[in-house]
Amino acid sequence: MSFEQERVLVLNGQHLTIEDVHAIAHGGVKVKIAGEAKELLAASRKFVLSLADSDTPVYGFNRGVGLNKDRVVESARYETYNRNLLYSHAAGVQPYASEAQVRAVLAARLNTLLVGRTGLDPAIAERYAEFLNLGIHPLVPLRGSVGVGDITLLSHVGLAFIGEGEVMFGGKRVPAAEALAQTGLEPLCLGPKDGLAIVSSNAVSAGTGALALYDCERLLELADLVYALSLEALQGRVAPLDASLHRYRPYAGQGASAARIRRFLHDSSLWDKESAALQDPLSFRSASHIHGAALDVLAFAKDALHTHLNASDDNPCVIFEEARIVPSANFEPLTWVLGFESLAIALSHLSKSASFRTIRLASPAFTGLSRFLAPDEATIAFGTIQKTFSALDAEIRHLINPSSSDYYALAGDIEDHGSNAPLVVSKVEQITDRLLYILAIEAIHAAQAIDLREAVQLGQGTRTLYKAIREVVPFLDKDRCLTDDIEASYTLLRSHSSRLVGGI
Amino acid sequence: MSFEQERVLVLNGQHLTIEDVHAIAHGGVKVKIAGEAKELLAASRKFVLSLADSDTPVYGFNRGVGLNKDRVVESARYETYNRNLLYSHAAGVQPYASEAQVRAVLAARLNTLLVGRTGLDPAIAERYAEFLNLGIHPLVPLRGSVGVGDITLLSHVGLAFIGEGEVMFGGKRVPAAEALAQTGLEPLCLGPKDGLAIVSSNAVSAGTGALALYDCERLLELADLVYALSLEALQGRVAPLDASLHRYRPYAGQGASAARIRRFLHDSSLWDKESAALQDPLSFRSASHIHGAALDVLAFAKDALHTHLNASDDNPCVIFEEARIVPSANFEPLTWVLGFESLAIALSHLSKSASFRTIRLASPAFTGLSRFLAPDEATIAFGTIQKTFSALDAEIRHLINPSSSDYYALAGDIEDHGSNAPLVVSKVEQITDRLLYILAIEAIHAAQAIDLREAVQLGQGTRTLYKAIREVVPFLDKDRCLTDDIEASYTLLRSHSSRLVGGI
Amino acid sequence: MSFEQERVLVLNGQHLTIEDVHAIAHGGVKVKIAGEAKELLAASRKFVLSLADSDTPVYGFNRGVGLNKDRVVESARYETYNRNLLYSHAAGVQPYASEAQVRAVLAARLNTLLVGRTGLDPAIAERYAEFLNLGIHPLVPLRGSVGVGDITLLSHVGLAFIGEGEVMFGGKRVPAAEALAQTGLEPLCLGPKDGLAIVSSNAVSAGTGALALYDCERLLELADLVYALSLEALQGRVAPLDASLHRYRPYAGQGASAARIRRFLHDSSLWDKESAALQDPLSFRSASHIHGAALDVLAFAKDALHTHLNASDDNPCVIFEEARIVPSANFEPLTWVLGFESLAIALSHLSKSASFRTIRLASPAFTGLSRFLAPDEATIAFGTIQKTFSALDAEIRHLINPSSSDYYALAGDIEDHGSNAPLVVSKVEQITDRLLYILAIEAIHAAQAIDLREAVQLGQGTRTLYKAIREVVPFLDKDRCLTDDIEASYTLLRSHSSRLVGGI
Amino acid sequence: MSFEQERVLVLNGQHLTIEDVHAIAHGGVKVKIAGEAKELLAASRKFVLSLADSDTPVYGFNRGVGLNKDRVVESARYETYNRNLLYSHAAGVQPYASEAQVRAVLAARLNTLLVGRTGLDPAIAERYAEFLNLGIHPLVPLRGSVGVGDITLLSHVGLAFIGEGEVMFGGKRVPAAEALAQTGLEPLCLGPKDGLAIVSSNAVSAGTGALALYDCERLLELADLVYALSLEALQGRVAPLDASLHRYRPYAGQGASAARIRRFLHDSSLWDKESAALQDPLSFRSASHIHGAALDVLAFAKDALHTHLNASDDNPCVIFEEARIVPSANFEPLTWVLGFESLAIALSHLSKSASFRTIRLASPAFTGLSRFLAPDEATIAFGTIQKTFSALDAEIRHLINPSSSDYYALAGDIEDHGSNAPLVVSKVEQITDRLLYILAIEAIHAAQAIDLREAVQLGQGTRTLYKAIREVVPFLDKDRCLTDDIEASYTLLRSHSSRLVGGI
Repeated sequence: MSFEQERVLVLNGQHLTIEDVHAIAHGGVKVKIAGEAKELLAASRKFVLSLADSDTPVYGFNRGVGLNKDRVVESARYETYNRNLLYSHAAGVQPYASEAQVRAVLAARLNTLLVGRTGLDPAIAERYAEFLNLGIHPLVPLRGSVGVGDITLLSHVGLAFIGEGEVMFGGKRVPAAEALAQTGLEPLCLGPKDGLAIVSSNAVSAGTGALALYDCERLLELADLVYALSLEALQGRVAPLDASLHRYRPYAGQGASAARIRRFLHDSSLWDKESAALQDPLSFRSASHIHGAALDVLAFAKDALHTHLNASDDNPCVIFEEARIVPSANFEPLTWVLGFESLAIALSHLSKSASFRTIRLASPAFTGLSRFLAPDEATIAFGTIQKTFSALDAEIRHLINPSSSDYYALAGDIEDHGSNAPLVVSKVEQITDRLLYILAIEAIHAAQAIDLREAVQLGQGTRTLYKAIREVVPFLDKDRCLTDDIEASYTLLRSHSSRLVGGI
Repeated sequence: MSFEQERVLVLNGQHLTIEDVHAIAHGGVKVKIAGEAKELLAASRKFVLSLADSDTPVYGFNRGVGLNKDRVVESARYETYNRNLLYSHAAGVQPYASEAQVRAVLAARLNTLLVGRTGLDPAIAERYAEFLNLGIHPLVPLRGSVGVGDITLLSHVGLAFIGEGEVMFGGKRVPAAEALAQTGLEPLCLGPKDGLAIVSSNAVSAGTGALALYDCERLLELADLVYALSLEALQGRVAPLDASLHRYRPYAGQGASAARIRRFLHDSSLWDKESAALQDPLSFRSASHIHGAALDVLAFAKDALHTHLNASDDNPCVIFEEARIVPSANFEPLTWVLGFESLAIALSHLSKSASFRTIRLASPAFTGLSRFLAPDEATIAFGTIQKTFSALDAEIRHLINPSSSDYYALAGDIEDHGSNAPLVVSKVEQITDRLLYILAIEAIHAAQAIDLREAVQLGQGTRTLYKAIREVVPFLDKDRCLTDDIEASYTLLRSHSSRLVGGI
Repeated sequence: MSFEQERVLVLNGQHLTIEDVHAIAHGGVKVKIAGEAKELLAASRKFVLSLADSDTPVYGFNRGVGLNKDRVVESARYETYNRNLLYSHAAGVQPYASEAQVRAVLAARLNTLLVGRTGLDPAIAERYAEFLNLGIHPLVPLRGSVGVGDITLLSHVGLAFIGEGEVMFGGKRVPAAEALAQTGLEPLCLGPKDGLAIVSSNAVSAGTGALALYDCERLLELADLVYALSLEALQGRVAPLDASLHRYRPYAGQGASAARIRRFLHDSSLWDKESAALQDPLSFRSASHIHGAALDVLAFAKDALHTHLNASDDNPCVIFEEARIVPSANFEPLTWVLGFESLAIALSHLSKSASFRTIRLASPAFTGLSRFLAPDEATIAFGTIQKTFSALDAEIRHLINPSSSDYYALAGDIEDHGSNAPLVVSKVEQITDRLLYILAIEAIHAAQAIDLREAVQLGQGTRTLYKAIREVVPFLDKDRCLTDDIEASYTLLRSHSSRLVGGI
Repeated sequence: MSFEQERVLVLNGQHLTIEDVHAIAHGGVKVKIAGEAKELLAASRKFVLSLADSDTPVYGFNRGVGLNKDRVVESARYETYNRNLLYSHAAGVQPYASEAQVRAVLAARLNTLLVGRTGLDPAIAERYAEFLNLGIHPLVPLRGSVGVGDITLLSHVGLAFIGEGEVMFGGKRVPAAEALAQTGLEPLCLGPKDGLAIVSSNAVSAGTGALALYDCERLLELADLVYALSLEALQGRVAPLDASLHRYRPYAGQGASAARIRRFLHDSSLWDKESAALQDPLSFRSASHIHGAALDVLAFAKDALHTHLNASDDNPCVIFEEARIVPSANFEPLTWVLGFESLAIALSHLSKSASFRTIRLASPAFTGLSRFLAPDEATIAFGTIQKTFSALDAEIRHLINPSSSDYYALAGDIEDHGSNAPLVVSKVEQITDRLLYILAIEAIHAAQAIDLREAVQLGQGTRTLYKAIREVVPFLDKDRCLTDDIEASYTLLRSHSSRLVGGI
């Protein structure tokens, strides 16, 4: 990844990361197609056009798609055919992607185009960049794809390219034609293979998936941080974080988590004396191992998605260097989808551990503090709130059930595989959101316990968290509506994760 | 159930139906407490107050709740204690219930109060009626209950009663105090047991559950209707609908479904001649059996929920007739929650059958019509749209995974059962919504197939459906954006189910 | 149902119960076809044969089955065709049904034949009775059916009828031909529709399902009994069992469970004084409600299965009275299969409640007894055993995930519905078995706690259980291998449920 | 890994692979402890004994385990205490591990001991080797562990070490004492920490998991091979296997699968001409991608399990080099357990793809061959057998539902994490077995289709498979019982996988 200027990312089909996708989606970063990629696009297109007069049957080019692969598409009908292809494929249902998600989708598709295996009109590739740089964001429904090509969804992007359908532009929902007119863009005119090039990609899944992973990675940092504060709240043992221990069980994730937690606890009084408890509950003791397992799975998913973001998912695949256009199954995203399925399960362990830790923090038997961390006997405090995170944890338990293999044979039994990638991505998003709520409640408990103790010297990282919590959720000195506190803590964790864990 | 006037329902704790709840929620029907119920409320309260000076420990009255059941609540502190109870229990998280849902919740709680086992101040019971009749709708979060008492959620209703928190009133979100002021209501002052009386109920689950069942029952009617149209589109066999057959396998549901379908097909040309096909695909042939199984399960769930809506879920239970106040577990809603779990699974069979029928309708081998029901060879028509309902069906497959037993021990291990009733209800709602989309797409196919045939005389019911579809979705004579058609058909089915199936 | 003599059950297609099926399967009861049923069989057959010379196409008779319904079967080829049908349908895989299960299957199929809608050769119906009465039990694989007709499995019964394949006979696995020879039976010769008549039925699912329900009903009795003993072990409150309470929440199940528990506790010292605890943990307090919910669901499943056992699942259905043979979908078992899906979920609540109760019994905070019910400080006792039931509960949690809608389109897309009935039945069996283990461990805990207390007067039913446990599992006075105790207690509960709960 | 002689594996705690575990378990390979490992064991033990007189509290040494960590264990009671620990932890339930599995368990535990972090008596480590080398295999139940230490199961190994319980020896089930006597071994006498050292490990999960992965890896090879034969049976396109395509989407798995399939198809006539079909069904076209995704996930799981097999899972962890004994959570196996959860989901894609391929092979529309691959019109052939693999696929769909996070808090809320490792491993085993059946049926179809074609020249690998199939399952020239064919094909694939794929 390289930045020409501060806010322009040069894409070449080889180095797009989830951090880049996040920057484009949320940070307003613009994009530019690298010179070498332009050459690939041109060469690829040139070869495709050279086939136009030949009678080699090519899927989605001079032949139809799906079951209609037996139907000839005559060159005179290219434009009509490709327009009809977009129409008939525009079959997604609500909800619509957010603008940030749409930007991620455009970036994801653009970069894979630059691998140069599509053979589309280079002007279309430029159109992705134009939309990103001008802030034209097509309305893209999120549901309706079975995840071997998000064809029902990406067609909506294609419609906007040719001036049909609607887009978000300048903060408003307007006809695509209007946004084109205002920005001086001409509606694209589609040639051979262009319709297929636009729709035959998993860019919706991959783009939104990149954002989901980005958020999930932040969540895992926050989980370490909130856990660290809870450990101080419990006055638990730091021994299981000992670097030596992790050397004898060298999983990358647990080592990294333990190291991060140690940093968060740098300077904490926890290191001064060992806890009286010989063994803390596993929800505390095993935290770095549990978080670490999630990190290991995240690394798998991230690596697999990175491969996808910089690979061709085109069918057929244009290998102009060998003067071939080859039927391909590179639209199968299964490896990274399985990574997401697994990540969901991993996160459920964080959810349950955080919930159990929070229950322990409200228990005098474990803390030596008051029941439900009440400031006095007249206050009920944190008893009923346990239902709240338990209910959210039950939602997470439900969300981890797999979905990728729940498909059937479509399109005359030709399309008999699926991955349900958009659904699988969406479940990780939903889990992440619920888990943020659970961590938000854990953090409230930890801060309360710390206030009930005397003379706890917090660590360098936990101190930051504690202060931030206390800015939005004061000490509970008497009963008050807890819904507001939960929402405040959640918003803090959601919005300011970088500030909270940054610099540590 | 009786109506004093057109729009007032007299509640007595004995006859509330899901149709009543729907009428109150969506139809603006007002409520009135029956005279005999008022007497019960008064007698129950009188007995409770007689205990105030005794030293019998009573849960949630002169003792705390949950793990704090060992804590004495002195009579001087009743008001403060009950206020704190509401505060500490107000721990739900977003989203908020719709106003219709809130009305259902208020009605559900009010009617169970009228069983007379709560012992609350009768003024509080009146407050439910006042809120319903004045259109004051507290903001009630939907998540945070594990389903043995929606205590974290109903506390928000209690806060509004005492003039705290927020409500929807006159179409706006305003402080509860403001709505009370505008309508001349005084904030309630809570006495002994009142806080518990307000929160210790499954009224959120039961109220929203009643609406969900109502919608589901409509959906099952629509499923029969859309199926009937598809059968005409296929020109399939009516033989399996024969009443005689169902006599030899006397499940109530399948008989009722078959009878309904026969009515929808009254006058159809399908009856004139028998199809050439000896046996249609099971998705057609078994429709009345599959829909019937769902009806059987629905009947179980509905019966169980009716019992709940007219029963006491109070703990402790005031049996003033015997001068006793008895610890109870009547807050356990498990029977009807299991009905909902089962209903979800039943609906997945409808989803899959409708999907398979739709695939068959697009297949020349089954219809003798064009591929994907295209009007001509230049049109792609209904190929890719198969992904759309397949993706929705995958969501439904995921939603049927059970959740009721995913709970753990809370509140010092005292609260070691759960049902996750709100989540289970929510899943049925979500399934119903997705299934409506799937039926909407099936209906589009059926109408298209019928247009491609010549001289099909539709049945009495299917004719109505066909015309209604064609008002919002014209014949597909060339490719166009299908997302709009889907949305139009869905909206039609969602909004006008009564009109479509009514009178048949 | 009527018994001619002590051990012969007269079947007429109208009154077969799961208790009957159990008696036939496990009790060695013989069967006889009622006279009126024989007349139905004869009339039905007569009509079918009258069609033999007509050219009306009839599925599975003069036409093929499944996708081959377009193929003509000439009368000269009836025998060969029906033999081939059995061969090609004999495609099940291991494991094989137990002999008791096979008897249940034979009984289930025989009784549905007596509804008189099959049109098979009456000699075949007699063959079921002969096999049952002579103890000839075909080897029937349990897997390979998608649950809309157990055709792949019942074909193995048909093979034995014609003297092929293998059977269990006299305690040995022998060729069917040998068992026929020894008993003087002639191999059957199949005529028109006979092959289909034998295979087109859900008798494997329904027969094994009847046994599963029977066991499950016993299990629910045991659960009440073991709970009652645990309540004495805890010295918990009987108040929630009060009959008055259940009147105000009139679910049949919870009322029945509470009444049964009260009977088990008749004469117990628990009734003498009220527990000091104001509210026991929900796993104790809600037991009759949780068990009751399972009873409600069981009643649904049982009622639905009874309907099935006395109904026709034939396709086509012979209505000789109207001289018609009608294509039917009566082979759809979905209603009762959904009952089993729901029952599985209900049982998971029993599993978790029993587990939590057992944990509480080992906790001094709840019992006032020693930690892990150890007899002294040198003994570790029941700490680690918690892992055992937790692991079994996790298996149950897994088993409750639904399966009935996990099917796809088969046989040229004609067979596009399924119920996976055998799998769903099998899951209920597996859950029941695991739950027996969990109850066995709970019972060990309860007995130990009672021994550690002084002067507990047990109830009439719990006394029986306590004594029975102590016959096989002595008081734990020092650590010993617990696996043996668990197995002994499990075997007791499994084998002697009638003795334990009988007469109470 | 190194072999001193042909059949002795020297273990040093650093290089144990799943292939090694398989060789020890199934191949009768013996083991020997490396010299450097012995030194570690001795040093570790020396340090532990040096603590015996100190009053530093050490978990499971001079203090109890679990909740009893507050109880002092006096040195005079070490032997009794450790014996009691084994007794009270011996709480597993049936079924018992196979002898091969027990060998895997012993090897897995022995190797992790050699990391030198346990501090046990080195004689115990030798005992593992003695049992392996003498063929003494304790009866180890497989259920009862929640997967953070298989303590309830490994205790049965410990009992055998001290001459209690039962073992398999010389093909018979005998008392452990008898096997010791016959082999001249003395019952071990346990000293401080020894009981914990034996039980506190995930060796049951890891050992059986290693065998499961080994089998799964073979399965994936077979899946490639059977697919290759199916592709020939279909006369499908080889284009998607093109190495160039995979370069543009560089997932390790899909590239490896495609390369392997190309090898299996070496010399096949498929390469000569391109198929008429422009695009085969995805179940064919995407096979290398789907299998490849499973390979990617397998690689994760295998790598993670290898780490485990060569790491310490001891608690506390003896770091004698620093004179410390540190409380640890290294018994958390979550990373590799998540790998298994994910692998299960991956395998469901293979199952469904194989099923769909098999359906296509029976469809004239795709093969140009007869319906259901029948040799003539009088034969029904492979119609009903579709139910068989569909039913097995439904079982697999059920088995992929996750289980690792279905645990609750045990042992006084101290043990509040779990992974259900044994259950998760068992599910992968069960899936593998069912998938073998499905592939067995696919192979039967492929062979039949090839026989129905003329002049197909098979590839080098597929020729081997074809011939092997035909040795046990002849061409279906008329209907016969298919159960036998399925079983024969399954047994072939299960038993001779190496022969089938070897050398290619």
